[in-house]
Amino acid sequence: MRAATLLSGGMDSTTVLFAMANMVGWRNCVAISMRYPSKHNVYELESAAKITMYTGVKHVIIDAGDLFKSFSSALLKTGNKIPEGHYEHASMSQTVVPARNLIFASIAAGFCESNNIEELWLGIHSGDHAIYPDCRPEFFVRLVETVLHATDDKVRCVAPFLNQDKTGILDFGFKQNVTVPYHLTRTCYKNQGNACGRCGACQERLEAFANHGIKDPIEYQ
Amino acid sequence: MRAATLLSGGMDSTTVLFAMANMVGWRNCVAISMRYPSKHNVYELESAAKITMYTGVKHVIIDAGDLFKSFSSALLKTGNKIPEGHYEHASMSQTVVPARNLIFASIAAGFCESNNIEELWLGIHSGDHAIYPDCRPEFFVRLVETVLHATDDKVRCVAPFLNQDKTGILDFGFKQNVTVPYHLTRTCYKNQGNACGRCGACQERLEAFANHGIKDPIEYQ
Repeated sequence: MRAATLLSGGMDSTTVLFAMANMVGWRNCVAISMRYPSKHNVYELESAAKITMYTGVKHVIIDAGDLFKSFSSALLKTGNKIPEGHYEHASMSQTVVPARNLIFASIAAGFCESNNIEELWLGIHSGDHAIYPDCRPEFFVRLVETVLHATDDKVRCVAPFLNQDKTGILDFGFKQNVTVPYHLTRTCYKNQGNACGRCGACQERLEAFANHGIKDPIEYQ
Repeated sequence: MRAATLLSGGMDSTTVLFAMANMVGWRNCVAISMRYPSKHNVYELESAAKITMYTGVKHVIIDAGDLFKSFSSALLKTGNKIPEGHYEHASMSQTVVPARNLIFASIAAGFCESNNIEELWLGIHSGDHAIYPDCRPEFFVRLVETVLHATDDKVRCVAPFLNQDKTGILDFGFKQNVTVPYHLTRTCYKNQGNACGRCGACQERLEAFANHGIKDPIEYQ
């Protein structure tokens, strides 16, 4: 069996890649990254490339750049400034890109069917439930069915961390035999080299490492 | 209320545009066309442009060109020759683009949410059920729920012709007060100016007009 995951280059999807490899073996894994005009996408893609080189997994980049021209979100280059503060604050909802995860999962499902890949693994988790509707369990269970029907039962979506937060994800990651390369991952939403440490994504990540009493190995501004 | 439809430029989606305008009024309608590398896309977009000029409806073209680079389908420029014969023949299944309708509906749903458009109307119909899994009622009912959840109940999908075929669609079209411009529509799958009359899409269209005893107003090769 072959499986693919949407690899953003962040700590969640990187851990998903390892969970997936545990199940299907590294040689049967494909990592799919999306090129799209979010402020942090260039840094995400850099991280995703490093992670796939580190693991030796096949990396496919799909260019979804032009889709989002008429979309509104602070996460996009065309949008307002990325808000700072805790992830669950109302201000962070400005970073929703409408239906983004549905769009990316749909594209990836079509890619999987085209390439005889039976499973599509996704890094959605409970930390995102409050703000992002297309990260919630009630969305995900419907996505699974919709994708099965759209692909004539050829592609099944899997979300191993659906009901865990970043602390739980790290818990899984730290237990792996092979070191998960968190030093190569990128979580920050901002358009800058080093992570800011202040946006919701950074704060949630820092909290998760702190909960484990482990220093986050990436550099902060 | 505002509504959008995916307008391919074919007779089905053109009729949907009229059905939608009956419900929400022309000034509240948006037509969304997708640019993607199918063999007939350039002719479809030409038709869609003519239809939106004819009706005066707002036309948005979303460029999904690069998404399909690693997809396999005879419908795509990278694929095999378009098969000829009846639409329900097994050979026509070569024209499936994996998850295409799911992908297009997802992108359109994100566009709708971004632009405060509450309904997304789709032209899927029973003639496509046999071959295209993402045109079947069991797919559509799940899509409706998935999109509602993905957009926090902001976008609802509507498929007025879900359980009708092209003959039923024409039946609706011919009953409108305003003439539906079937002479501007494009249905053929082939990469050529005039419709071929032999591919499954052409045959199904010709049958629908014949069932009404009306000559199809477009030119055939």
